[in-house]
Amino acid sequence: MKVFVIGAGGNVGCLAVEKLVAAGHQVMAGVHREAQVADFKQQGVAAEIFDLLGQPEEMAKQLEGYDAIVFSAGSGGKTGSDMTILVDLDGAVKSMQAAEIAGVKRYVMVSAIFAEDRTKWISIKPYYAAKFYADEWLRHRTALDYTILEPGALTFEPGTGQVTTKIPEEGGSISRTDVAAAIVASLQQDKTIGKVIPLIQGDTPVEQALQEI
Amino acid sequence: MKVFVIGAGGNVGCLAVEKLVAAGHQVMAGVHREAQVADFKQQGVAAEIFDLLGQPEEMAKQLEGYDAIVFSAGSGGKTGSDMTILVDLDGAVKSMQAAEIAGVKRYVMVSAIFAEDRTKWISIKPYYAAKFYADEWLRHRTALDYTILEPGALTFEPGTGQVTTKIPEEGGSISRTDVAAAIVASLQQDKTIGKVIPLIQGDTPVEQALQEI
Repeated sequence: MKVFVIGAGGNVGCLAVEKLVAAGHQVMAGVHREAQVADFKQQGVAAEIFDLLGQPEEMAKQLEGYDAIVFSAGSGGKTGSDMTILVDLDGAVKSMQAAEIAGVKRYVMVSAIFAEDRTKWISIKPYYAAKFYADEWLRHRTALDYTILEPGALTFEPGTGQVTTKIPEEGGSISRTDVAAAIVASLQQDKTIGKVIPLIQGDTPVEQALQEI
Repeated sequence: MKVFVIGAGGNVGCLAVEKLVAAGHQVMAGVHREAQVADFKQQGVAAEIFDLLGQPEEMAKQLEGYDAIVFSAGSGGKTGSDMTILVDLDGAVKSMQAAEIAGVKRYVMVSAIFAEDRTKWISIKPYYAAKFYADEWLRHRTALDYTILEPGALTFEPGTGQVTTKIPEEGGSISRTDVAAAIVASLQQDKTIGKVIPLIQGDTPVEQALQEI
């Protein structure tokens, strides 16, 4: 499968690229900075700048010919909320519009646990709001074959390969490596199309957990 | 008409309250601070705190029994973009959801010129993005009888009562007083329902300009 990863320079994104390549997919790493392009190329992975502050029509030119898009970009905690709304929300929506212009149907969004439930936005509310509206657009304003992954608090722990989609009231955490595994598994299982899938560490192998959705 | 004005403490909002009262409507001024409640009450206008950071279900209790809602709230330039997304976007959307819960059909949104066209978001892009997504929700995700007013750059000039909805490429400006007049005129003309109406200073009386939409 030809996969374009938007936000490949991020912590989840680069793990997703690694796992997609390992699974035999043809991957383009869409990144924010030239240094990241160089890094990926040094590892033998195709990479290019993908500007989330640009317009959908420009983005679409870069997405043409791909089978799937993974969106794992995020402005991060170091920039202000101006970038949260312009990247995590509007950048995401523009990439969806670009996907539709380019005729790419499959779109995997890395969102956040409880993004759809305002009463659970305890911290970093602007981030959750951005995720909420981006996910809403994907579900209700596009005809894309989407999967929305909603990982819990992201950790740098090694992946266990074991997760659960049954989330207790208080949420939970998950290794970034296992989120990356879930991205790959989602692309390989059409059953995940049209689904919003919460994910935390658990005791079911990733592929099986996604099949039980 | 019983009208609830959200953001009545703002520059446009308080002018709208004044004009609505003068036109014989029964108005509730929804404001952000207790001091503003006292100010309105001193002028003989009913007022109460309306918390845009609350949940739709709570907001709905305050909106019950009204015929129309005017949304002219804005977090303003002094707060950060975190409040832009939480007030101008999510606060607005929650008030729409609250309107639907409360069974209030009529909703007049004060948006901004060119909000629907990203290529024209030259400055304060987070503000335009917030307006864009709030307007999109109103148009596509509610069954409200909406009017979206899109004034140009707001001035403190005295109103002329004369506007135009024919906007040149470079936009234009409009007195806050005339925006307030357009809010009142919109509520009084059902023809404005379901319309997005750009407004700048011009040479057509406000009511007539809205009739020609």
